Amino acid sequence: MLSQIKHHHSCRNFTTRQIEPSVMTEILSAAIRASNTGNMQLYSIIATSSPEIKRQLEPLHFNQPAATSAPVLLTFCADINRFSKWCRLRDAAPGYDNFLWFESASVDAVLASSNACIEAEAHGLGICYLGTTLYNAGRIASVLKLPRGVIPVMTVAVGYPAVEGELTDRLPLDAVVHQDTYHDYTDKDIERIWQQREASPETAALLKENGLPNLAQIFTLRRYTADDSVTFSRAYLDEVKKQGFFNQ
Amino acid sequence: MLSQIKHHHSCRNFTTRQIEPSVMTEILSAAIRASNTGNMQLYSIIATSSPEIKRQLEPLHFNQPAATSAPVLLTFCADINRFSKWCRLRDAAPGYDNFLWFESASVDAVLASSNACIEAEAHGLGICYLGTTLYNAGRIASVLKLPRGVIPVMTVAVGYPAVEGELTDRLPLDAVVHQDTYHDYTDKDIERIWQQREASPETAALLKENGLPNLAQIFTLRRYTADDSVTFSRAYLDEVKKQGFFNQ
Repeated sequence: MLSQIKHHHSCRNFTTRQIEPSVMTEILSAAIRASNTGNMQLYSIIATSSPEIKRQLEPLHFNQPAATSAPVLLTFCADINRFSKWCRLRDAAPGYDNFLWFESASVDAVLASSNACIEAEAHGLGICYLGTTLYNAGRIASVLKLPRGVIPVMTVAVGYPAVEGELTDRLPLDAVVHQDTYHDYTDKDIERIWQQREASPETAALLKENGLPNLAQIFTLRRYTADDSVTFSRAYLDEVKKQGFFNQ
Repeated sequence: MLSQIKHHHSCRNFTTRQIEPSVMTEILSAAIRASNTGNMQLYSIIATSSPEIKRQLEPLHFNQPAATSAPVLLTFCADINRFSKWCRLRDAAPGYDNFLWFESASVDAVLASSNACIEAEAHGLGICYLGTTLYNAGRIASVLKLPRGVIPVMTVAVGYPAVEGELTDRLPLDAVVHQDTYHDYTDKDIERIWQQREASPETAALLKENGLPNLAQIFTLRRYTADDSVTFSRAYLDEVKKQGFFNQ
């Protein structure tokens, strides 16, 4: 397996070393080589290294160390603004202000981010995906001055690693892959595929620390509660609508 | 730049050579190493090689040669079904049936697909992303027997290339990347960033073939019309709702 893929792990602490401009150019150039729908490149990448702007973004990523210590935050956005402007200048009527193109442009933004990360790791840099982008998309859009037609999907923190991260475990391959069609999970399947993670020393430590009986409750009561999900979900949907992706 | 990234191009014609099981295992194992939200792995990969099932998928991808000639179609789906089942078995209340987690799980599915593609190309295979998955998601879900909580996001056709594809052009890097914050495009910017693609021999040939005055109208009148977008957008949103991602 490709070394960058096999050994990839999130980096959550970066040194103060800046990323050389030539390296950053390689990373961004790798990003835009990614596959994308119809070669329309319906995404934009905001590379924020200015301390002033970065300071405004950090609390919107809950001041997690990956965000505060990284020299650069790359915010990947679905963008129908640029393409639609071009269409209007050419007397062509764009029709991309809807859910289909929100999803399509999101997919393309994520493919670009993946190339950027793999290329960054090939240069000895560390990366961390910040899912918090979806939680505070409205305020992030405002800091980054995103016009209508542009919505943040994903942020990547990039920099030189301060500490080596560790590989995280995964469910067994056959838990995620289905042959030919989907084979729905029986209770017995669920027991089997989670067995190893539930029995790990890391899980035991987490349960003790949180005073909870099982790992699933760590997720539903601590990490991603239903209440938070509903709040953030409504806010993100509102922002997607406000930015003009639900007009039709 | 990493060779797979630099030389990546879509492959639209595959030979009849089957993919060795060990190679497919490497590809899928690479997929599940991808970064994902909270290590919840909220996606499933359906690897369809059965001729009978594949034949049912092909028209849903508009019988494009990439779909019909590939020995395997990998359909990447956002999946809250597996995780929610586990939660319920553990007396933990899942709250993932909403737009936030549709988007979050979609992002994770796409990151997994990107790893799969880069690994596949490292083995000499070719790949093609099929965006048609969003157009016929309902019927694809039905062929693949996706239960509630699972929605197709992206399909990748994989196989050994029959013909070498060609690199496609891209907008200049500074057309897609913004320093610190978004810098909206003036008409002059738009003219500049599209200049090279509009002036290419490929574009000239397309305009002649289609009897149209400019490239933008090729997109809006031929490839991705507003009428089609609205139809497919409504259908995809309906399917996302039907599969239980808009409950809250």
